[in-house]
Amino acid sequence: MTTPPDAIAALDEADPLAPMRALFDLPEGLVYLDGNSLGVLPRGVSERVARVINDEWRQGLISSWGGGWIDLPTSVGAAIARLIGATSEEVVVGDSTSVNLFKCLAAALRLRPERRVILTEADNFPTDNYISQGLSDLLGGYQIRYVAAGDDPAAALGDDVAVLSLTHVNYRTAAVHDMQRMTAAAHDVGALAVWDMSHSTGALPIDLNLAGADFAVGCTYKYLNGGPGAPAFCFAAQSLLDEVRQPLSGWMGHMDPFAFGPDYEPAPAARRFLCGTPQILSLGALSAALELWTEVDMVAVRRKSLALSDLFIGLVDEFAEEHGLEIVTPRQHEQRGSHVSIRAANGHAVMRALAERGVIGDFRAPDLMRFGFTPLYTSFTDIWRAAMALRDVFESRAWHDERFAQRLRVT
Amino acid sequence: MTTPPDAIAALDEADPLAPMRALFDLPEGLVYLDGNSLGVLPRGVSERVARVINDEWRQGLISSWGGGWIDLPTSVGAAIARLIGATSEEVVVGDSTSVNLFKCLAAALRLRPERRVILTEADNFPTDNYISQGLSDLLGGYQIRYVAAGDDPAAALGDDVAVLSLTHVNYRTAAVHDMQRMTAAAHDVGALAVWDMSHSTGALPIDLNLAGADFAVGCTYKYLNGGPGAPAFCFAAQSLLDEVRQPLSGWMGHMDPFAFGPDYEPAPAARRFLCGTPQILSLGALSAALELWTEVDMVAVRRKSLALSDLFIGLVDEFAEEHGLEIVTPRQHEQRGSHVSIRAANGHAVMRALAERGVIGDFRAPDLMRFGFTPLYTSFTDIWRAAMALRDVFESRAWHDERFAQRLRVT
Repeated sequence: MTTPPDAIAALDEADPLAPMRALFDLPEGLVYLDGNSLGVLPRGVSERVARVINDEWRQGLISSWGGGWIDLPTSVGAAIARLIGATSEEVVVGDSTSVNLFKCLAAALRLRPERRVILTEADNFPTDNYISQGLSDLLGGYQIRYVAAGDDPAAALGDDVAVLSLTHVNYRTAAVHDMQRMTAAAHDVGALAVWDMSHSTGALPIDLNLAGADFAVGCTYKYLNGGPGAPAFCFAAQSLLDEVRQPLSGWMGHMDPFAFGPDYEPAPAARRFLCGTPQILSLGALSAALELWTEVDMVAVRRKSLALSDLFIGLVDEFAEEHGLEIVTPRQHEQRGSHVSIRAANGHAVMRALAERGVIGDFRAPDLMRFGFTPLYTSFTDIWRAAMALRDVFESRAWHDERFAQRLRVT
Repeated sequence: MTTPPDAIAALDEADPLAPMRALFDLPEGLVYLDGNSLGVLPRGVSERVARVINDEWRQGLISSWGGGWIDLPTSVGAAIARLIGATSEEVVVGDSTSVNLFKCLAAALRLRPERRVILTEADNFPTDNYISQGLSDLLGGYQIRYVAAGDDPAAALGDDVAVLSLTHVNYRTAAVHDMQRMTAAAHDVGALAVWDMSHSTGALPIDLNLAGADFAVGCTYKYLNGGPGAPAFCFAAQSLLDEVRQPLSGWMGHMDPFAFGPDYEPAPAARRFLCGTPQILSLGALSAALELWTEVDMVAVRRKSLALSDLFIGLVDEFAEEHGLEIVTPRQHEQRGSHVSIRAANGHAVMRALAERGVIGDFRAPDLMRFGFTPLYTSFTDIWRAAMALRDVFESRAWHDERFAQRLRVT
């Protein structure tokens, strides 16, 4: 890799978060800008999981349930609560984002029995809408109303809407919803708001309670670096917790699971959103990954995230027009999440050529190149190298070679 | 630990499965008879998980999804399919037993839209009935009919029953249902049968297709030794797979998850029972644990399981009456699973006193002591030691000391 100019190196030197990079086990020589899809391995996680296996499972066996495992869904939930403006009673961890969204949507519909519309966006993350579809099909008599990309969901709210289901940061464009305004608009018509925080947790300061959110779910394997498929979180606002019911009423959400009573009685607080036995190895990894967040200042994270994406946008702007690139991520700070997406007709080939140069981003069909900025370990030098590699791919027409090769294979 | 008599040692010497014990990492000096709750650590699992973390996650990062992770729910499902009489198309692994039961029950009800009864047993494993309750509450208009413990569920079937939900081996008594007879009885009235195989998978020969089962779910952290909270499996019969729909329609069950299309379209075969992103560390551990099952003869496992429980029952019979113990597990081989439960008024204190003597079983309120026999690593010597320790606890009145001590603490 080439050495960045002094101005770039100076940014890293002045970066208060720069020392955190050493807390991650980054592959040598790689510029990894896909932490918005799968975060890198934090140091200490491997050792923690080895202890879970070799000490707690091998040696402790069944006694380890009472020795801490049973509390992991709530203790890990409490560690996440601090990052999302929630109380420890409002958050649990377990299952996947999709499963947790099902619980929250079903719980919300039950609280608005006279209403029959789920309002969401056509370009919401697909699994979110698939889950709405599955729930709607199961219940019958419901309608899913899709707001077209770019339109204001608040304008589509009406008194027939039971629940507004939105993702805070769009997975394609990185456009950010104003949670407080949207939630207030939902409440104004008597609807409830369910938020998917997968692309914002650990990237932006979040205050679910300040925003008035009713329910939220989110992924922990992106900016929180919990590991592949790490268990998701589930939030329900304190004001709803006494009355709320969710249909995946498994024993771990029971008031007293080991009483083995005949009837389901929901546990206090968000614990009633748990269902079956938690996957302890994955949960143990997440628990260790969250330890490095204890002292993290989310305002500093956000400041660096914007500085990283500003730098990247500025560098790409220099050659974007010449090569027909369109940056689709909003340029206004308050509307931008922590990744940058660039539209390019040959985007897939370009991302492959970039990977050959040691720069990893990802691609979302049909034409979006995504570059994620994870402030705890992404450096300004990474950004500069990625932008330079991108320019080189276009200038050397490396993408063209691949397209040509592909055409040869097809014919 | 004391040395067993020659007759017991001879049983171990003649045991064709005895060499398999070396494939497990058993704590020194422990007689572990709780593998029906949490199986012990197989050798090789720790190393596999370390590779998943340090090679696949740390080094491979996002590329590891395409490099094998994405196929784990079906490849691990195929490994389990061989043990339960299913084809590899019929089984997937992911989520918990409770979540998978919700999917199967909802799918079954959808196939019988004119019927409104879920038939189950009052002493089914509680989370199974909690899930029926949650689904029934969500849908409205359904009734759960509970068959009293000991009564024949087949006698309670009628043409209003949509689904018969049973657990193959009872978690308390180890009583076994005749799957083929029960399923046929359900089919005779036009109902579907959903089986929970948690306490039989890896312990008994199972042939879901021979039995005609429609749906099945099961746990992998008991006899399959997949690790604490290891992901569960989900089976749907081939004949239903084209038409069946389940409501937790997340992206991993989509025909083409990475096309990011707007509408859910179910994947072929059992893959449509997947939902969100799988927890890869836990799934990797299970994948490694299942490797030692490749050559296992389930008939030999069953033969040894019955020999172990016969020996235990015979030894306990010698002092049961004197100390007021009642063996509640059926004595007929065909009605007995792979654990033995003994009713004792002071059972909880007894199990604690046993643990102090290095013998681990468990206790189910109000009065059942459970001892699980896992033929791949339980030896006849283990059984003898457990029975002798049990006799010693009663004869030395060790349980009495604890009860006395507890009374002191309370007052």
